[in-house]
Amino acid sequence: MPHPTDVLDRFYSVIPAGGIGSRLWPLSRADAPKFLHDLTGSGQTLLRDTWDRLAPLSGDQRIMVVTGRAHRAAVETQLPELADHNVVLESEPRESTAAIGLAAAILNKREPGVIIGSFAADHVIQSAPLFRHAVREAVVAADAGYIVTIGIRPTEPAIGFGYIKCGSALPIDGARDALAVTSFVEKPNLATAKRYLSNGHYLWNAGMFIARADRLLEEIGASEPEMLAGLLELAEAWDTPARGAVVDQVWPKLKKIAIDYSVAEPVAARGQLAVIPGEFGWDDVGDFASVAKLHSGGRKRDLAIVGENARVLADSSSGIVVSSTQRMIALVGVENIVVVDTPDALLVTTSANAQKVKSVVDALKLSGSSDVL
Amino acid sequence: MPHPTDVLDRFYSVIPAGGIGSRLWPLSRADAPKFLHDLTGSGQTLLRDTWDRLAPLSGDQRIMVVTGRAHRAAVETQLPELADHNVVLESEPRESTAAIGLAAAILNKREPGVIIGSFAADHVIQSAPLFRHAVREAVVAADAGYIVTIGIRPTEPAIGFGYIKCGSALPIDGARDALAVTSFVEKPNLATAKRYLSNGHYLWNAGMFIARADRLLEEIGASEPEMLAGLLELAEAWDTPARGAVVDQVWPKLKKIAIDYSVAEPVAARGQLAVIPGEFGWDDVGDFASVAKLHSGGRKRDLAIVGENARVLADSSSGIVVSSTQRMIALVGVENIVVVDTPDALLVTTSANAQKVKSVVDALKLSGSSDVL
Repeated sequence: MPHPTDVLDRFYSVIPAGGIGSRLWPLSRADAPKFLHDLTGSGQTLLRDTWDRLAPLSGDQRIMVVTGRAHRAAVETQLPELADHNVVLESEPRESTAAIGLAAAILNKREPGVIIGSFAADHVIQSAPLFRHAVREAVVAADAGYIVTIGIRPTEPAIGFGYIKCGSALPIDGARDALAVTSFVEKPNLATAKRYLSNGHYLWNAGMFIARADRLLEEIGASEPEMLAGLLELAEAWDTPARGAVVDQVWPKLKKIAIDYSVAEPVAARGQLAVIPGEFGWDDVGDFASVAKLHSGGRKRDLAIVGENARVLADSSSGIVVSSTQRMIALVGVENIVVVDTPDALLVTTSANAQKVKSVVDALKLSGSSDVL
Repeated sequence: MPHPTDVLDRFYSVIPAGGIGSRLWPLSRADAPKFLHDLTGSGQTLLRDTWDRLAPLSGDQRIMVVTGRAHRAAVETQLPELADHNVVLESEPRESTAAIGLAAAILNKREPGVIIGSFAADHVIQSAPLFRHAVREAVVAADAGYIVTIGIRPTEPAIGFGYIKCGSALPIDGARDALAVTSFVEKPNLATAKRYLSNGHYLWNAGMFIARADRLLEEIGASEPEMLAGLLELAEAWDTPARGAVVDQVWPKLKKIAIDYSVAEPVAARGQLAVIPGEFGWDDVGDFASVAKLHSGGRKRDLAIVGENARVLADSSSGIVVSSTQRMIALVGVENIVVVDTPDALLVTTSANAQKVKSVVDALKLSGSSDVL
């Protein structure tokens, strides 16, 4: 059995920092995506929180960030420790297989045998120590050749997440919690979610993947051989003067496909996917109802107020106010309300409708109101 | 019987333009009271609407406006025809007996035998011709010595208005609709309001009073002799160089009392109050639910949008958006919502809670947030 510390020496964190977070409009925008906001009241952005969680595992010098060119400056401001060679800029978004696959290809070329773990820049985790405990087990399982995910033990019958169905325990030294993944299932309806919760063999899919970079590339190649060829071509040129030309030529042609489909599902079908159950408190903060829940500590009758300079006057109202202005916001007798106040756009909805906010963004695009997107 | 035209020659309109309209905060403010807003979508302010309704009755030169010093410029901008000697400025608000009483005293000194009619600057009337028809009858009844009000035939069991209980017909030539007022009753609960509606003998109190100025002063003197003395002292000095000094000395000491209590109720108790029923469509636009109703034409499922440059994107939401900004306002799945968006303050409530908006203003005062009042 390898000593976990030795294995961690080969570990590299990858943070894909993409995704505007349309359901968090008008707070999240093209030029101010979700990961650049403080949605938890921690006093720092979700991206910075993510960094601070990972740095004790891999060290500052071993965290790679994959982000859009437009966000480079903001990312570097948030992460002054981020090394130049650990910034991977996408000329345009190509989905998670390309983003994580490129990181894997670059790192594997630089350091054969490297183990990478990919963690979204805009999720919330309550207990960083418990999270790191799970990652350590995942790294050990990855070193044994598995593609590994960390699944979240459900605390409620959530319908906004996909689920991972777990099978039997895997005999991996140093990863005693590891289970085989039977399958991935899409977001369920409420009745199904309740069944999953009581069944006990279902975990939330938090989109965390840990694998030896060479194994991950192998699996990408198994399902998407053209993608693999492109990624290897990019990696070959990456640390050379040819990078720009090759990126311009190869990147825009890469297939847009989520890593769940290209890797996780086919690997799970072959019984090669391991999952480490996590109970560290996780949320993808996908909509304002989720933001409200984070701030109210789960109490439904509360009004959560987010925003440094927020001026709010409310009576018996409940829900959430997010303010990035200094306007006086008065609420009178509104329940489970969501009010998001920004200098050029205002959203009013309810917790129950929070998921539909994405449709507003779609409608604004169609109506040519891109000034507020 | 005097010819109505002759009587109208002695008629003078008085428009008390005071009252911020706290239940319409944050649209109505100390420096932008309700009467300076276009709440009907007519394209002009309520004050201007009021003037245009009255000018055909009394003529431009016979309309007096009683308003606060702070509103002088705005009032004169709205009413360029308003003669200087028809502007009565209150150094501080002293309620309706003082405001209307002062107008009566000034006009009666200038023109003994004048008949005055007082009509709020911030009410909405649908049919100006029917309104003027009712006023003409009221003027005739006033000439016969009655204190006269115009009561509104209820169209629903409103709980936001006071009611007038009508008695028997009064034998006044030229005012065949005139009834004696039995009593005034305060805002009822819903059950009582329904009873009033089906009973048929109750009208809404719209605060319109028509009387010979000398009769009105006599009645003020009967219940508030000190007030009458003060008003006569003011009127004596009004058109002389002594006005300023006398106003400074007398006005601040006048009792604050609504004319309903000082005149209307005691006169009604003596059977000396006449009412002309009006069916011209009236609303005091007291809150945003009322504004919404005006704009939706009574349809409950509509979303009313008020504001010249309003940018609103809404799905199935209903209620009202009032915007004095150019911000994008997105509503998702909110019902009977009230959103009032101004540059420095935002209100979110529901139609059912619209009356409670006044409590916000009270709370803002208490909390020292006078910048948004």
